Amino acid sequence: MKPVVHLVVDYVREEERLLRRSLGAWAEVHVVNLREDPVPIGGAVADAAVIRPVSMYRAAYAAGAYEASGSFTVNTSEAIIYSGDKALTYARLAAANIASPATLIASSEEAALRAAEETGYPVVVKPPVGSWGRLVSKARSPEKLAQVARLRSALPCTPQRVMLIQPLLETGGSDIRCIVVAGQLLGCMRRRASRPGEWRSNVALGARVEAHRPSPEEEDAAIRAARAVNGYFVSIDLFETRDGPLVNEVNGVPEFKGFIRATGVNPAEALSKALRESLRR
Amino acid sequence: MKPVVHLVVDYVREEERLLRRSLGAWAEVHVVNLREDPVPIGGAVADAAVIRPVSMYRAAYAAGAYEASGSFTVNTSEAIIYSGDKALTYARLAAANIASPATLIASSEEAALRAAEETGYPVVVKPPVGSWGRLVSKARSPEKLAQVARLRSALPCTPQRVMLIQPLLETGGSDIRCIVVAGQLLGCMRRRASRPGEWRSNVALGARVEAHRPSPEEEDAAIRAARAVNGYFVSIDLFETRDGPLVNEVNGVPEFKGFIRATGVNPAEALSKALRESLRR
Amino acid sequence: MKPVVHLVVDYVREEERLLRRSLGAWAEVHVVNLREDPVPIGGAVADAAVIRPVSMYRAAYAAGAYEASGSFTVNTSEAIIYSGDKALTYARLAAANIASPATLIASSEEAALRAAEETGYPVVVKPPVGSWGRLVSKARSPEKLAQVARLRSALPCTPQRVMLIQPLLETGGSDIRCIVVAGQLLGCMRRRASRPGEWRSNVALGARVEAHRPSPEEEDAAIRAARAVNGYFVSIDLFETRDGPLVNEVNGVPEFKGFIRATGVNPAEALSKALRESLRR
Amino acid sequence: MKPVVHLVVDYVREEERLLRRSLGAWAEVHVVNLREDPVPIGGAVADAAVIRPVSMYRAAYAAGAYEASGSFTVNTSEAIIYSGDKALTYARLAAANIASPATLIASSEEAALRAAEETGYPVVVKPPVGSWGRLVSKARSPEKLAQVARLRSALPCTPQRVMLIQPLLETGGSDIRCIVVAGQLLGCMRRRASRPGEWRSNVALGARVEAHRPSPEEEDAAIRAARAVNGYFVSIDLFETRDGPLVNEVNGVPEFKGFIRATGVNPAEALSKALRESLRR
Repeated sequence: MKPVVHLVVDYVREEERLLRRSLGAWAEVHVVNLREDPVPIGGAVADAAVIRPVSMYRAAYAAGAYEASGSFTVNTSEAIIYSGDKALTYARLAAANIASPATLIASSEEAALRAAEETGYPVVVKPPVGSWGRLVSKARSPEKLAQVARLRSALPCTPQRVMLIQPLLETGGSDIRCIVVAGQLLGCMRRRASRPGEWRSNVALGARVEAHRPSPEEEDAAIRAARAVNGYFVSIDLFETRDGPLVNEVNGVPEFKGFIRATGVNPAEALSKALRESLRR
Repeated sequence: MKPVVHLVVDYVREEERLLRRSLGAWAEVHVVNLREDPVPIGGAVADAAVIRPVSMYRAAYAAGAYEASGSFTVNTSEAIIYSGDKALTYARLAAANIASPATLIASSEEAALRAAEETGYPVVVKPPVGSWGRLVSKARSPEKLAQVARLRSALPCTPQRVMLIQPLLETGGSDIRCIVVAGQLLGCMRRRASRPGEWRSNVALGARVEAHRPSPEEEDAAIRAARAVNGYFVSIDLFETRDGPLVNEVNGVPEFKGFIRATGVNPAEALSKALRESLRR
Repeated sequence: MKPVVHLVVDYVREEERLLRRSLGAWAEVHVVNLREDPVPIGGAVADAAVIRPVSMYRAAYAAGAYEASGSFTVNTSEAIIYSGDKALTYARLAAANIASPATLIASSEEAALRAAEETGYPVVVKPPVGSWGRLVSKARSPEKLAQVARLRSALPCTPQRVMLIQPLLETGGSDIRCIVVAGQLLGCMRRRASRPGEWRSNVALGARVEAHRPSPEEEDAAIRAARAVNGYFVSIDLFETRDGPLVNEVNGVPEFKGFIRATGVNPAEALSKALRESLRR
Repeated sequence: MKPVVHLVVDYVREEERLLRRSLGAWAEVHVVNLREDPVPIGGAVADAAVIRPVSMYRAAYAAGAYEASGSFTVNTSEAIIYSGDKALTYARLAAANIASPATLIASSEEAALRAAEETGYPVVVKPPVGSWGRLVSKARSPEKLAQVARLRSALPCTPQRVMLIQPLLETGGSDIRCIVVAGQLLGCMRRRASRPGEWRSNVALGARVEAHRPSPEEEDAAIRAARAVNGYFVSIDLFETRDGPLVNEVNGVPEFKGFIRATGVNPAEALSKALRESLRR
């Protein structure tokens, strides 16, 4: 009898279609669509659950519900939360002595200004939760930072209102995205910002991608970062600096369309294979 | 030399004043007020941090920041998140086979209606995050549930919009709140809703409190629930049922003013004493 | 030389396509799409502007901008606001002695409970701004009303948080929608709720429609309601009661796809014709 | 028998206490507190209503409710909305040929960037609704403007999300605030920003105030601006430029604590006197 795998989604993207196909080769796959289906906490009967909602909290809750019934859950709620929320990601990275940008947490305009006195200007201001660089700001002076802080304070959700303050790193608008599956590095790609002025290297913002052969330091950073958040299937974003790679972000529900285009490697296949082996044990 | 303890707050309530006094007897206490002070991730120099912000996310982020620098953190970010977010609490309780209300997670009106078909009406609808019962609703029919779901869908933050659907339990408007410190049960109190019509037993809603001598089953449930979220200092809310106690809620930044009034026991003193011993080891 | 008409939109629906076609027969039509185009306050050079954004405030702002440059604006900002915001609509209707549901404005849970003491239960609770009945609730008891009020108080925008409290009218899930153009009644249709349980007769909720021949009282109520908000092109929703028609709603950016289906009359044509004549004067 | 005046508030500030005292000299004053009291649309029995809620929409709704029952209402809902919402204020000013800053309305990042191409940089970005300069931003480049636009797009309420784009005026951090009562200029004061870097001259931000003797052009601008919004009791903020005064803002629920301090003139007394005379006619 085939193992039962629940593929939990809210929107079906290219990634989810690929996962369904790969998993379907050996498992009975049920698609659970959160826009229609409730998820019982602890009552699901699945050997494994692959958690793919775009919304971080929905993903974490679904993961928790499957963990509660003993399903092998990729990723666990812990991995999703500790990678999806940058404040917690940086905390785990720092606790594990993995190099990442110096970061202060500020909950008010005053706290933000004090934080920037420590990092020095210009600063980057990020919300802990949120994707595609949409709410990431840059401030070159206290006046500008105060302006950003006031706008943020009008946002309705705490995880958007809190500010992560970091010194602006000179990255040349380029970073390295790696994918780790079950403790192994699957590969890396380089992302370059779409145009000279743009400093954010998000694919959703038009960044160009190409395969990247990781250095041993990069491989080490990626694998350790995945472990720091207990991630089974995660992407890791690295900045290259004179002192070696910095981990800038980890994602517990990784998008990988651009990764396939750049590297020719299909993470859906790799995850499916690893999961099958994990279930056999 | 005295150990350094950071007391992290956003608002200073009676609880925080008591903690400051108790900790001050043996430690050098610094109050970190998130409305003014930034918190560096990984750079703090405190032997311990006692995390008290009212806002769950602010509390979790502060905890993570102190964990990153190796401070003994009460509670850890994990305990704060897994107790502060009811979806995750129920997941952990179910995973540990601790009795709790049957719960389904619904992300849409349709999912909520399907969930209620499984639990049967009337249902209780709760947001995963939120305090004092403010957004807890009761629905006796699909029409009423749809109405609640539509109002909720207009809320701006995902953790408010997601709905936890549970069957309405007959609790007689009363529950048991216990406090656990470092794995030991400190005591319990009973809370009774303020008036016959009111079914929510929140002290903030005027509930009356009195000391309660826990049964062995209640003690066991409280201690195991604290362990399920890895909580060092947590409150646990229990419902009494024919089949024994159900854990309804766990809180990782517990309020305890009403507890002192009901039991004469001061959790600030108990926490301070336990923390001192933990630091000595 | 043809008159210049700006058709201001944010989303292009069937209605906007029909308007473009009708207006194009005699005018040079420019589509101004607010998702891309800024609107100068007072600098536009259009003989007339037809205002169609789905968002009420965007519509009102665009109307104001065109009024400022002397364009003939359909509808004016005043008509859009006083019809789009139900609190203001009811105020204008009452001031003009046009029958409408008894309504109290409540800004808090306490005020809502007091309001319902005056109307008696069951009550309908509506936000002043909002479409398609999405946030309209019904409450049969103070407990239920308090629950609705608490959910509403968590909404982020004041015009959603304010509650209009009305006695529940027995409408049999049916109402009459009329369209008035330039002071003349264009026609009416009846809308019936999609299913017995459903009491909201919104087409977006699946209501069925059919042509309706208005009584003289209905014609009078519709025309006077349009005048009360100074509307040039508006829809008016009526309830039928023993004591004659009640005006329940006025819309200053009317949808009319269902109206065409029910009546065979095309409001886009009628508006276009009236506007052409108004410009000639 | 004394006339009955309803003083409608949500919070009671110094201004409301002064109004209550002045009105109490000749009227029977009832304080209606929107946090507790519902307001019937059309059923109130007051000779006059003085509308003072801090929240613009609550103020407008209360005004509409009293207008509906024929009370003399200060200000009317029209005056409150057309002065409280800057997009509508600028529209009315432009329609009346009163000099005000060149303004474009933008509903998206793209529209904002196009608007700034027309005004030139630096630009000021304002929300239509909101007080005390809290969400007013300055942008010196397209990159900065895009950043501001992205933050704004995450705000939950349309009147906050829409952007008014204006060229930055060199005002030296100073402006003139005048108060008009019943068509007469009561007086003016000058406000200076609290510190050199600060360009916003809001008293709430610490601006210093002093009496200012208005020029004939300033008097004319203030009186005409009040008339443009049909305001009975309004404050008008002017910028001084080489080409004469520009009207920057009108407020239909004016604060006047700073005005009394600067000028020694009590607007509460002036309003009370004018209202008494209006009621006699």
